Amino acid sequence: MKYPSRVKIVDVAPRDGLQNEKAPVPAEVKIGLVHRLQDAGLKEIEVTSFVSPKWVPQMADAAEVMAGIERRPGARYSVLTPNMKGFEAALACRPDEIVVFGAASEAFSHRNINCSIAESIERFAPVVSAAREHGIHVRGAISVAVGCPYEGEVSPANVELVARLMKGIGVQHVGVADTIGVGTPLKVQRALEAALKHYDLDDVSGHFHDTYGQALGNTLAALQMGVWQYDTSCAGLGGCPYAKGATGNVATEDVVYMLHGMGIATGIDLDKLVDAGKYISDFLRRPPNSRAATALLNKRQG
Amino acid sequence: MKYPSRVKIVDVAPRDGLQNEKAPVPAEVKIGLVHRLQDAGLKEIEVTSFVSPKWVPQMADAAEVMAGIERRPGARYSVLTPNMKGFEAALACRPDEIVVFGAASEAFSHRNINCSIAESIERFAPVVSAAREHGIHVRGAISVAVGCPYEGEVSPANVELVARLMKGIGVQHVGVADTIGVGTPLKVQRALEAALKHYDLDDVSGHFHDTYGQALGNTLAALQMGVWQYDTSCAGLGGCPYAKGATGNVATEDVVYMLHGMGIATGIDLDKLVDAGKYISDFLRRPPNSRAATALLNKRQG
Repeated sequence: MKYPSRVKIVDVAPRDGLQNEKAPVPAEVKIGLVHRLQDAGLKEIEVTSFVSPKWVPQMADAAEVMAGIERRPGARYSVLTPNMKGFEAALACRPDEIVVFGAASEAFSHRNINCSIAESIERFAPVVSAAREHGIHVRGAISVAVGCPYEGEVSPANVELVARLMKGIGVQHVGVADTIGVGTPLKVQRALEAALKHYDLDDVSGHFHDTYGQALGNTLAALQMGVWQYDTSCAGLGGCPYAKGATGNVATEDVVYMLHGMGIATGIDLDKLVDAGKYISDFLRRPPNSRAATALLNKRQG
Repeated sequence: MKYPSRVKIVDVAPRDGLQNEKAPVPAEVKIGLVHRLQDAGLKEIEVTSFVSPKWVPQMADAAEVMAGIERRPGARYSVLTPNMKGFEAALACRPDEIVVFGAASEAFSHRNINCSIAESIERFAPVVSAAREHGIHVRGAISVAVGCPYEGEVSPANVELVARLMKGIGVQHVGVADTIGVGTPLKVQRALEAALKHYDLDDVSGHFHDTYGQALGNTLAALQMGVWQYDTSCAGLGGCPYAKGATGNVATEDVVYMLHGMGIATGIDLDKLVDAGKYISDFLRRPPNSRAATALLNKRQG
């Protein structure tokens, strides 16, 4: 079994993790989280989302957060831009990468954005073009890539369709996202294989939710295919607004614990990562949603 | 990748799971749990432990629990017997299997039972002989097989030593137990390989704790070696009295969810298993420590 010798983690806690928090998190706390993630060695952070504050009030401070970050050399700061208005607002903040998204389920696409998969991707075409013209890297998130809350299992053919359409409009990298966490190792491998029909191994990442406790098994299965880039969320922050009970991006701490235990380098200092998770968890007044963080914090208390 | 087509789960919740609960759990509740596990399709259940009630008061009702179970044909009921006195008490209850144990760490063995690994196994020799004479199957648990709270990483050579010594006294099957949950996939595979030097694949099982969130990745790694028998605990009940912060056998629900998602048969009805976990969790007045159970219970509530 050949594993990658190095894995790149994109921490999505500041955006995907905090997006659905009901109580407002001040910009300075979000900035504090980004800084602590940087201190822990994270080189790519999904910082915020340039969306309508009517839809996602938690992200209304996107520009303030981006402006407040002390950027580190070699680090990459990504933001979500669902449309041209969002992109234009984002542009002033000089993101290194933008993220666009498309669901791999027709039912999900129709229920949530009232159009087909193909139409949803087409809408991003001008955003992607504009980003590429400005030299900004474009990542596409393929959501509900394994299962959908409305139609159940999602066929790998749908993932391939989204990957093909994203490739067509110039998206440079795709993340295969098990948004509701129902995936298991073989299904996740099939979804990744579908994306790999249109993207190189270096341009595909895994984004797994731990709703059913499956994310680390799925990560292991993806590693065995050579996939070496993963989105994870410090302290396991986050969930999915569309899927009841779908709480929890996989915790960065749990993934890093596994990788380091396997001798796979991440460049991340696990102790400092636990600090970052404790910082935001303390602010939110709840324990980190990470088993590794919980165990390591217990150990610190002696 | 070749996976087993079928997996046998030994649910250890009634014994390993409840053993360290401080508040007494009445025998009828333990019996109720065993019955619900049977209803869910479990064919092997670790029921209780014949130990001194001074040491483990929660298991003082061992004989009552064993006597109260309505046994199902084809099911196997196992009990822990740490010494001849325990074995003799167990014998009257007609267990199908007894479990003996040995630590793979000298430090752990000395700190907890004040003798070397070799001495600890030798003490079980008369128990194993007696059991075999009575036609009772003997399973050996190799504890702290990957990591030890006192000496850190445990060498596979130690696991091999315990396996060899257990083989020598007539133990028929060994379980490789990551008692404190620090294992990651490659380390777990090396520990299993060490046991497989002395036991056939059909006589080795995995027993993983989810303390650091690693148990499902470890299970996947073990499946890839052909290991098809696992100890798990309904509702994730249990922990380790010797290791601070070491909470949580892996939840049967999470393992079954993964296996079924991979098309691997278990004979278990996941919905009924969730019922069993809810039954004991309701009694203990806390939610099941299982992500799959939590997600499935959320879904039921619509």
